[in-house]
Amino acid sequence: MPFPPLNFCSKCGAKLALRVPPGDSLPRHVCDNCGTIHYRNPLVVVGTIPEWEDRILLCKRAIEPRHGLWTLPAGFMELGETTAQAALRETHEEAKARVELGEVFSLLSVPHVDQVHVFYRARLLDSDFAPGEETLEVGLFEEGEIPWKEIAFRTISTTLRHFYADRRAGAFGFHAGEILPPK
Amino acid sequence: MPFPPLNFCSKCGAKLALRVPPGDSLPRHVCDNCGTIHYRNPLVVVGTIPEWEDRILLCKRAIEPRHGLWTLPAGFMELGETTAQAALRETHEEAKARVELGEVFSLLSVPHVDQVHVFYRARLLDSDFAPGEETLEVGLFEEGEIPWKEIAFRTISTTLRHFYADRRAGAFGFHAGEILPPK
Repeated sequence: MPFPPLNFCSKCGAKLALRVPPGDSLPRHVCDNCGTIHYRNPLVVVGTIPEWEDRILLCKRAIEPRHGLWTLPAGFMELGETTAQAALRETHEEAKARVELGEVFSLLSVPHVDQVHVFYRARLLDSDFAPGEETLEVGLFEEGEIPWKEIAFRTISTTLRHFYADRRAGAFGFHAGEILPPK
Repeated sequence: MPFPPLNFCSKCGAKLALRVPPGDSLPRHVCDNCGTIHYRNPLVVVGTIPEWEDRILLCKRAIEPRHGLWTLPAGFMELGETTAQAALRETHEEAKARVELGEVFSLLSVPHVDQVHVFYRARLLDSDFAPGEETLEVGLFEEGEIPWKEIAFRTISTTLRHFYADRRAGAFGFHAGEILPPK
């Protein structure tokens, strides 16, 4: 979901200019007709690590980017939602799964794509799940079965690595960090 | 920073329609001329709890909303930033303060204003601070001096209450939650 270009004012339709508004420090897209300043800001992606006994649920993506690769259920937070509501909604949309949310487990900035990813621990309420619209296949994986080479995003592999490290250590923590651009 | 209306396509300038795109579940502003879908998503606000010995730094706001009330240094995350970079930048912009960041302390959804607030613990590197452009006054406060009735936002008072509760308990944790609309 790349941002569309800011050529025209979404309020009045006039051509936009790019300049630093008074009191600001960064160039913004400003409308000289109606005075609107159009800001662009990072997006929040929220998901879950759904657990069923010693296995976790992964989804094989039916959409780009990373079609055919595996991910935790996650997606863009919508207006009017809390991060917890977004986590529950995305888990149901992508995997038709019902979960009880646990604690926030990871908060990872991905500055080169202007995103912040948040993952909650979660417990599947039953093993009754199925692929949603954007998913080809849903499965439960033991640690040894995780398809590490076919994970869609580094926020997912990072979150999973923290998850298994914490599980081995016997205590789940909270993990904040960042994903740097691929070399 | 309310969102400007989505009347016209920012890419091509045509009038937008509001409808549910194929495969989506929510109405979006779509352009029938160039095919662009314009999404709106929550914004991330990032700040710090700057500590100096047993005091913390607060800023009196020079801008609306909540002009004249006290806040922790915080502001909207910009494109290309990590949450940590946004926290450092906002602390410098609002209080001209240099801090060493600690752990992420709070993650609070504010669904009725479409925001997620993230606060880091932070240690002031020196006591050399001053009001930035959007700040009237900066001060260091002991717990008993916090102007609880003049705090600008409930994410700030909630974060401060968790901070002092954790300090009394002798261990700082991570606090996720939500702020419900005022009654």
